[in-house]
Amino acid sequence: MVKLDELLSIIENPARRRILEALAREPHYPLQLSRELGISQQAVMKHLKVLEQYKLVRSYHEKSDLGGPRRRQFYPALNFTIVVDASPNMFTTEVHYREENRVFIPKNREIEDLSTNNRILELRREIAGIEEKLDDLYRQREALILDKESVLEEARSLAENLDDYQLRRILYEFISRPELDLKGIAKALDMRDEVVANALDEWLNWGR
Amino acid sequence: MVKLDELLSIIENPARRRILEALAREPHYPLQLSRELGISQQAVMKHLKVLEQYKLVRSYHEKSDLGGPRRRQFYPALNFTIVVDASPNMFTTEVHYREENRVFIPKNREIEDLSTNNRILELRREIAGIEEKLDDLYRQREALILDKESVLEEARSLAENLDDYQLRRILYEFISRPELDLKGIAKALDMRDEVVANALDEWLNWGR
Repeated sequence: MVKLDELLSIIENPARRRILEALAREPHYPLQLSRELGISQQAVMKHLKVLEQYKLVRSYHEKSDLGGPRRRQFYPALNFTIVVDASPNMFTTEVHYREENRVFIPKNREIEDLSTNNRILELRREIAGIEEKLDDLYRQREALILDKESVLEEARSLAENLDDYQLRRILYEFISRPELDLKGIAKALDMRDEVVANALDEWLNWGR
Repeated sequence: MVKLDELLSIIENPARRRILEALAREPHYPLQLSRELGISQQAVMKHLKVLEQYKLVRSYHEKSDLGGPRRRQFYPALNFTIVVDASPNMFTTEVHYREENRVFIPKNREIEDLSTNNRILELRREIAGIEEKLDDLYRQREALILDKESVLEEARSLAENLDDYQLRRILYEFISRPELDLKGIAKALDMRDEVVANALDEWLNWGR
């Protein structure tokens, strides 16, 4: 599984993103990508090599019934979502991987005549409906992010009462990462358990 | 407003992300960042310069009541969310900017004695509640992304019936971007309106 650091450095490149966008539509061979995207074939090959190395694309040799050279077709092999939330009191970067087999792949049906097929309009409407729901979820998420921002702002103003930088770090970590216990906080901050325990004891009268 | 391309290339750098994470906690001066993050002061200055250039951080001179040199404190000045969705039939990268003034900043209250203040535990619980709701929204979003993936997979199998690459592009764009009208699709694909109109006419019997 490719790490977040690597994923970000791979997709940071605009040409690579355009290649991945094209491959999401259909498999492409290198010359085709070069022509369609206006990127030199050498650059396309270089990008595909990086993407293949990280197993974000795969390739197969196309069957040729003309006896000509078999072209190497590239297709995407990735399934993840990256979310970066940046605000005055927050900077988090997360990647969620999906298992490949979780994706529902409908059977490839043969449609002889597209002109009589209303399915095109139906699919467009389905996408519109999904996008509307995604927008709605996004608005709900935004409200939560603002709530979180406000809580973290208050955490910051509490921490300002502490003179010691390391104690402020402990306080921030304790509030902002409720999924961590004492040992988890110590590990995340690269501190001894005792240091964290003493601070929490003092603030919360734990264990007294 | 910093463009997506630039944002991605700025946050791609792990050291810059660690700097932004630290600044989200509290303002830092360069030497402090260097010491806390184990990054050379020269590198820290270089990263801060880039971040300041793109207006993602700002700085002020700390008041000194000891008559010593005034230190330059850096703080974050960013407010956005980036979402990258990658799956076999999808590769989308979006940035949503928030207005800075949309963030609620509570008044800085003075708390004399943290030890008697249960607010620390309350804030931790508030964050836990928010994270739980965010996880729930994320699960709902995942279900929609799978729906979208499935619709796009069907769009792809429809497009496979077309011999012409440019026609396949039009079909994919028409289905996957329902917010675009005919002219919007032509513009997005850098094609003449007529070409798009003819294709849609044929498939949908539009205007007949």
